[in-house]
Amino acid sequence: VNLGWALDRLGAVFEGSVGEGVPAQVEALIREADRVAAEDEEMCRLMGEHGAEVIPPEGAGILTHCNAGALATGGMGTALAPIYTVHARGVPVKVYADETRPLLQGARLTAWELDRAGVEVTVITDSMAASLMRTGKVNLVITGTDRVAANGDVANKIGTYGVAVLAREHGIPFYVASPRSTFDPKSPGGADIPIEERDEGEVRGLAGRMTAASGARVWNPAFDVTPHHLVTAFITDGGILRPPFHASIARLLEGGEGS
Amino acid sequence: VNLGWALDRLGAVFEGSVGEGVPAQVEALIREADRVAAEDEEMCRLMGEHGAEVIPPEGAGILTHCNAGALATGGMGTALAPIYTVHARGVPVKVYADETRPLLQGARLTAWELDRAGVEVTVITDSMAASLMRTGKVNLVITGTDRVAANGDVANKIGTYGVAVLAREHGIPFYVASPRSTFDPKSPGGADIPIEERDEGEVRGLAGRMTAASGARVWNPAFDVTPHHLVTAFITDGGILRPPFHASIARLLEGGEGS
Repeated sequence: VNLGWALDRLGAVFEGSVGEGVPAQVEALIREADRVAAEDEEMCRLMGEHGAEVIPPEGAGILTHCNAGALATGGMGTALAPIYTVHARGVPVKVYADETRPLLQGARLTAWELDRAGVEVTVITDSMAASLMRTGKVNLVITGTDRVAANGDVANKIGTYGVAVLAREHGIPFYVASPRSTFDPKSPGGADIPIEERDEGEVRGLAGRMTAASGARVWNPAFDVTPHHLVTAFITDGGILRPPFHASIARLLEGGEGS
Repeated sequence: VNLGWALDRLGAVFEGSVGEGVPAQVEALIREADRVAAEDEEMCRLMGEHGAEVIPPEGAGILTHCNAGALATGGMGTALAPIYTVHARGVPVKVYADETRPLLQGARLTAWELDRAGVEVTVITDSMAASLMRTGKVNLVITGTDRVAANGDVANKIGTYGVAVLAREHGIPFYVASPRSTFDPKSPGGADIPIEERDEGEVRGLAGRMTAASGARVWNPAFDVTPHHLVTAFITDGGILRPPFHASIARLLEGGEGS
């Protein structure tokens, strides 16, 4: 949703500068894009500040899914921003990254950028999250999101919903990092969010090698919806939003702040 | 456990035939191995017969994890035996196979053998099981097991425990197919079952290609333990075992039958 939001802003600048000549239009678009980038960086910084509140200052094991870090945003990320923030303050954090099949954004992107920043990161296959939680090594989960409905239902990378169920089963708080621009008041609930089904080849193989029997069918939904009752709180650039989400989200979008 | 049980039987034949000369010993070992193979085939057949009782005769969607089929046993398998049995009777079944990272036994073995037998099979990544259950397309789960403790705790391929939690969350029965020889009365509970940790390379890559950032750590437990309270029933060659498992397992191992 926030990609569309940025494009809408640029679209408005384009429309508003029609007739000023191409060089002026290009300059106006670059100025607006720079503003969006600067705001994105500041938004990430604020999410890091607010999210740091939910990480115990004595240290924590944190599970994440997919990539919502510096590689996916203009700043230091959404889900990873609180981790970078407390790491810079000297809080010892151990991050566990679900590899995130089929496209392995966790194993490739999250693991790479956290390791590069000096944060201890351990890659697990998605199927290991339940056992890892059972060991007691995970104190909290933080994921990103592609879209949050008005009631707090969360659309995110396939597998997020399962992680949320497992977190609840193990009494582990489940946080969703979401900038203001990712809340979508036009979607009342998760049932209103369309789920893209992607190319079968992503599940049938990996890096050019076949991994599944050729005669089998394949199902490849790109996203899933986590119902709001499994979400402990939202980490936003406007503060931490707690249940009832319908009210706290509305307050954020009206310009108020979270707790 | 049942591999050790078969080797123990051959070991006893070997010990008992010491002094009879090598050709006689070899013949005795082959005879015993043939008996084990025939018993294994019959055991699979019986598990198929008993397991068929838990599959609705009007058809069902069945999720399985890893491979516990004809490729893993002397007969038609353990977890897949009930599926082959009802398929032969004309019951329409749709099987969903978790790909089962890191070694992909579901995508490679389960999908291959079911497709070859004419059973409709759909491969999903492990992270999709929760969403699939939420669609209502899964009526029951059947997995195999490597060892069942005296209290009914189940050691099986990594990921099984998570599937069991998700099944419970969605009100889907979770069955474990287990021949008599896989129950281990010497392990009182799951905590007594050692979990092998395997080579990091299995998670770091696939088919010779790196899939994880090289600086990241890796955790690779081969198995997990599903606590008995998440198991609906055991499908055994001696019938269906229901809770309380401590009693029904003891009865089976004393030579009695399940329900």
